[in-house]
Amino acid sequence: MIPNLNIVPFVSVDHMMKLVLKIGVERFLSDLAAYIEEDFRRWPVFDKTPRVASHSADGVIELMPTSDNRNYGFKYVNGHPKNTREGRQTVTAFGVLSDVATGYPVLMTEMTILTALRTAATSAVAAKALAPRGASCMAIIGNGAQSEFQALAFKALLGIRELRLYDIDPDATAKCARNLAGLGFAITTCHSAQEAVEGAHIITTVTADKQYATILTDNMVGAGVHINAVGGDCPGKTELHRDILLRSDIFVEYPPQTRIEGEIQQLPADYPVTELWQVLTGAAVGRRDARQITLFDSVGFATEDFSALRYVRDQLQGTGLYQELDMLADPDEPRDLFGMLLRAASPPGAVAA
Amino acid sequence: MIPNLNIVPFVSVDHMMKLVLKIGVERFLSDLAAYIEEDFRRWPVFDKTPRVASHSADGVIELMPTSDNRNYGFKYVNGHPKNTREGRQTVTAFGVLSDVATGYPVLMTEMTILTALRTAATSAVAAKALAPRGASCMAIIGNGAQSEFQALAFKALLGIRELRLYDIDPDATAKCARNLAGLGFAITTCHSAQEAVEGAHIITTVTADKQYATILTDNMVGAGVHINAVGGDCPGKTELHRDILLRSDIFVEYPPQTRIEGEIQQLPADYPVTELWQVLTGAAVGRRDARQITLFDSVGFATEDFSALRYVRDQLQGTGLYQELDMLADPDEPRDLFGMLLRAASPPGAVAA
Repeated sequence: MIPNLNIVPFVSVDHMMKLVLKIGVERFLSDLAAYIEEDFRRWPVFDKTPRVASHSADGVIELMPTSDNRNYGFKYVNGHPKNTREGRQTVTAFGVLSDVATGYPVLMTEMTILTALRTAATSAVAAKALAPRGASCMAIIGNGAQSEFQALAFKALLGIRELRLYDIDPDATAKCARNLAGLGFAITTCHSAQEAVEGAHIITTVTADKQYATILTDNMVGAGVHINAVGGDCPGKTELHRDILLRSDIFVEYPPQTRIEGEIQQLPADYPVTELWQVLTGAAVGRRDARQITLFDSVGFATEDFSALRYVRDQLQGTGLYQELDMLADPDEPRDLFGMLLRAASPPGAVAA
Repeated sequence: MIPNLNIVPFVSVDHMMKLVLKIGVERFLSDLAAYIEEDFRRWPVFDKTPRVASHSADGVIELMPTSDNRNYGFKYVNGHPKNTREGRQTVTAFGVLSDVATGYPVLMTEMTILTALRTAATSAVAAKALAPRGASCMAIIGNGAQSEFQALAFKALLGIRELRLYDIDPDATAKCARNLAGLGFAITTCHSAQEAVEGAHIITTVTADKQYATILTDNMVGAGVHINAVGGDCPGKTELHRDILLRSDIFVEYPPQTRIEGEIQQLPADYPVTELWQVLTGAAVGRRDARQITLFDSVGFATEDFSALRYVRDQLQGTGLYQELDMLADPDEPRDLFGMLLRAASPPGAVAA
């Protein structure tokens, strides 16, 4: 008998926070980025599909499955911009990692925090390959739930030390600046997106409205910058003026998904883009010169969640930072599910209704 | 503030068994069948998609989402025939019900037991509409984990009192007969499928091999019977000889899925079939005459799991038969996910890596 076949470790929000704090946010981001990059480098082995989305008037609920033929992972994630008005998160998520050989789940975890971490880590992986050499200053436009994670991932992976923050809501900027105080950044709070991008080598856009927006217009973007476009991530939601896209070299995760959800939904379906995994493996060129504008049109792909699930599973051992969920029926005899139910009855005669 | 926004009730295997026993298996099946029938009757409101399957050498892992625009539900389910050799279930499952307006999960539950119950309840809903009047005797070919649930569902909904059991493994038949002893059936254990179908008004086939099989050949099926074909449910897995299909009127759940997974994968893609929901609403005719062979080519559809999730959620209140999972991040300020993490740190300076 293999023990505890039916038990699935579950990482709650509280346990995830403790795990992140135990490892340290920046080390967590660096280590997670290594898993993400590793999985991008073996991109062809993954079973890939655009996310399975269920749209409604107020938002979207999505399932994001993938598999490397050893493990299978999926994430459940919602996106409901109006949620914040009622004290809820715009985006919440949880995920499951399974063993492909048996189909049995081996990990269930909260992924709201984990998604913020993996999104930031992915942005930094892309920027490490695409941003101008010696980049030290980043503008962050949109200072909501994702902003601090972006800042710390870019500090950990690229050595970004100077931040220029702007949000349409000054309270959000103040919150971001407060949370990042003492963590090694020189922070400038700005009063417009225009002001924020001045002198920035990297521009991160990470706003949340579910609508076509123009966070950046063409005249705001100078030669040589790297744009990390995180917020445009579903049909009808973009952040950049189309003219910026036309001046940039565009890098994406998985074209069939990005063409539906990313900034490039503004462009023809055959507009040339480069896949990030090809840059990371050396099969495609990333940044060619110092004046080029590079654009990572990030929408978030299932392999990144898969990497995050793998990473968390590998860190859990010995931490005690999980609960054991009795999630899988485990009868003594696999074909005797009903007998298991019968034997759970007390007195035995209680089964018949 | 809405209390406990971040808490999701979780029904473990143990709690599910206690819930089923508390309600009583047959009443559970009858009540669940009413939910399933109700959802079939409002079929057009559902957001329907074939299941999202990830196939591997040993089996399949599937996600089955659907939504009625108020709730969203999905099931994770695997199918790994070789699992039983290692003491694991061929099929295990869990599921989640969510609120479409917020995207927040409102229930997570084991679904291995629940799937067995919903599959049986669905078979009985179909048979109630299609089986010959006064049917009292059912053959069950395949006496594994699903067999007892089928028997009890057909007793509860159609008044089946006589069972004729056959399995290629006599131990399975003995197990099934033993489990059903004392529950109001006259049981005949048979030594061949041929013997089992003699005199049966309903023939249930529910075998588990992942291969083309011929559990029933054409000469074994007499006029007037209803065939409840449960076991053929994935590409390459069928139970009935093609000639039986050609003599039957075929009823299915969701044609785009059944044509891939059901018995009708043996037939041309445009072979006429009738959708069960249309029979249940009166839009299509079910059984026309006493000599007709009706065939319910069951593969299991996402709406049935949705009905089961709804049913369980409606039964939980006041039972205490669930755990509270801390699954969703719930910062005081929704945009301040990082601040929540910061405040979880102790001492406060511990965040920076």
